[in-house]
Amino acid sequence: MSKIMVLNQKAIEEVLDMKKVIDVVENVYVSKSTGSAVVWPMVFHEFEPGKADMDIKSGYLKENEIYGLKLVSWFGENGKKGLPLLYGTTLVFDSNTGVPLGLLDAEYITGMRTGAAGAIGAKYLARKDSENLLMIGAGHQSIFQIAATLIAMDNIKTVRIYDAIDFDRAKALSSSLGKKLAEKFLSKYEKGTELYDLIAKKFEIDFEAVSDIKEAVGKSDIIITATPSRKPMIMKEWVKKGTHFSCVGSDMEGKQEIDENIFDDARVYVDDIGQAVNVGEVEIPIKKGIIEKQDIIAEIGEVIAGHVSGRNNDEDITIYDTTGIALQDLITSKLAIDLAKKKGLGVEVDL
Amino acid sequence: MSKIMVLNQKAIEEVLDMKKVIDVVENVYVSKSTGSAVVWPMVFHEFEPGKADMDIKSGYLKENEIYGLKLVSWFGENGKKGLPLLYGTTLVFDSNTGVPLGLLDAEYITGMRTGAAGAIGAKYLARKDSENLLMIGAGHQSIFQIAATLIAMDNIKTVRIYDAIDFDRAKALSSSLGKKLAEKFLSKYEKGTELYDLIAKKFEIDFEAVSDIKEAVGKSDIIITATPSRKPMIMKEWVKKGTHFSCVGSDMEGKQEIDENIFDDARVYVDDIGQAVNVGEVEIPIKKGIIEKQDIIAEIGEVIAGHVSGRNNDEDITIYDTTGIALQDLITSKLAIDLAKKKGLGVEVDL
Repeated sequence: MSKIMVLNQKAIEEVLDMKKVIDVVENVYVSKSTGSAVVWPMVFHEFEPGKADMDIKSGYLKENEIYGLKLVSWFGENGKKGLPLLYGTTLVFDSNTGVPLGLLDAEYITGMRTGAAGAIGAKYLARKDSENLLMIGAGHQSIFQIAATLIAMDNIKTVRIYDAIDFDRAKALSSSLGKKLAEKFLSKYEKGTELYDLIAKKFEIDFEAVSDIKEAVGKSDIIITATPSRKPMIMKEWVKKGTHFSCVGSDMEGKQEIDENIFDDARVYVDDIGQAVNVGEVEIPIKKGIIEKQDIIAEIGEVIAGHVSGRNNDEDITIYDTTGIALQDLITSKLAIDLAKKKGLGVEVDL
Repeated sequence: MSKIMVLNQKAIEEVLDMKKVIDVVENVYVSKSTGSAVVWPMVFHEFEPGKADMDIKSGYLKENEIYGLKLVSWFGENGKKGLPLLYGTTLVFDSNTGVPLGLLDAEYITGMRTGAAGAIGAKYLARKDSENLLMIGAGHQSIFQIAATLIAMDNIKTVRIYDAIDFDRAKALSSSLGKKLAEKFLSKYEKGTELYDLIAKKFEIDFEAVSDIKEAVGKSDIIITATPSRKPMIMKEWVKKGTHFSCVGSDMEGKQEIDENIFDDARVYVDDIGQAVNVGEVEIPIKKGIIEKQDIIAEIGEVIAGHVSGRNNDEDITIYDTTGIALQDLITSKLAIDLAKKKGLGVEVDL
């Protein structure tokens, strides 16, 4: 018998802060690049095509001394039953002993680790002096992307938000963003500390909903896409020199957010080469022959570790294609468990 | 947010009874044979060869409206740390909605569902008038096998126990067996009921430790093997006509409990053909060319469903090779969850 920590979304929201999540996700990308963290084969099952499926993603983080899995289920008709469409759960074990450490709701963890991923792309590939961030998609994930990128970058002055389906959603988000960022992300830091003041300042910038995507793209240094799109929303000819893209939305065959021709002379990085080629933003450009798999410069961990260079100059177009890997969820879950223990949060149950 | 039931070994022991477990395992074997229950690909990782590994077995039981997984970790050096070598956990979800239903310690569940498996082999393949049961191996699993087989069969009069490594262990088990069966298995039924009396009577028989395996084999109608053996312990020439074998121990490449020549003219059944051929008792006879994969008559579910016959006469040698499938763990976990809810046991936690 052992005690396992059960953490629901409320407890996880209370303990996780974005800066720490960015740090651990960076570390795990490096571990992956050195081979000390490994992703195991995914189990996928479609209960009913287009209506319900689930996957089990699992892996091992040797340096962090954990292994485990994330099981995500999608039931498209749950709305009719008043239930969420997605359920995610992570289960984490101690890799020295096999002792189960924690069972966690994965929704907020997924939000945080995905926000961190997009921001890490910008941190290592965008121009340091980037001032203009364009967020494509005003859904659930957008605030995580914006919070993380503001924390990871030092010179952002304007965040523009575009939503292809619903301009009002972009407008509502932009008008409430200052308040929401303060409530959801700044509140995690102690008032009066240097870190608090730094992040507070980063959040006190301009937020603007935009309806003209072409114009907005032309003004942007960093563009993050987080939509379920299946056709490109951004055309190559709109993109100015030196732009960085973090493509977050594509995680299934057939998904695409940006013009495949942008890849032609861009420097392309991914989180996991195999997964990106199969289901990421690079899938379509490779299938259409715009680039080849070998044109992917590296996995991002190689850049963070300093083994591979990011952009070479201020004119390069850089693309970070992140599909999301279980290692991010596991390390973020471990962080939440450790912090919850320190703060006396969560429920420890005899298992 | 949803509530998940967490059940530790103590709660599970309290709610599960062997008769119900036999029933649900039989049902799930039938579901597997009709294709309504499916096993998903296994994830396996060896942390250090021969020292530590883990596997994730998962699957979907459509009729029972659940899916989920069992993760089993083995850390061979845990003994030095005062920890169990094995940790098992099952995680069960509702297949109509994806809602997580339960997180369970898998140790007792594994004991029960494995006992049920061996007994189901005997129930459907042994002679109905079988009186003599020989248990090979006096380890942790033996009492589950004996309890389940006594419950599943109606005419057992003697149970003999043989342990190749430690006769004293067999002796200790045989002398305490009556008491242990009453405490651990009979106690689950209500005193004074017909079922209680029936099972009490089945447990009031002779238990005998034996040191001469050859002689014991020659006297036996049903032989259950549950050892980690890597070489055959039972030779073909010792086996009398009409004997049934339930081979439970072999679940890894290279394991073998009975002479491969026994398979030559036996009627052979398995729980899962693919898994049995790779890691079960049939692995060696097939590799040595004694039988071919096609000689396996059927998966046991086909026999239970009545689509395939078991033994044809009182002289057939029958073999049931069970390697253990996740579906057994999942259905037994679901049973434990349902019973725990009825009895107000277990801990329901917000997830």
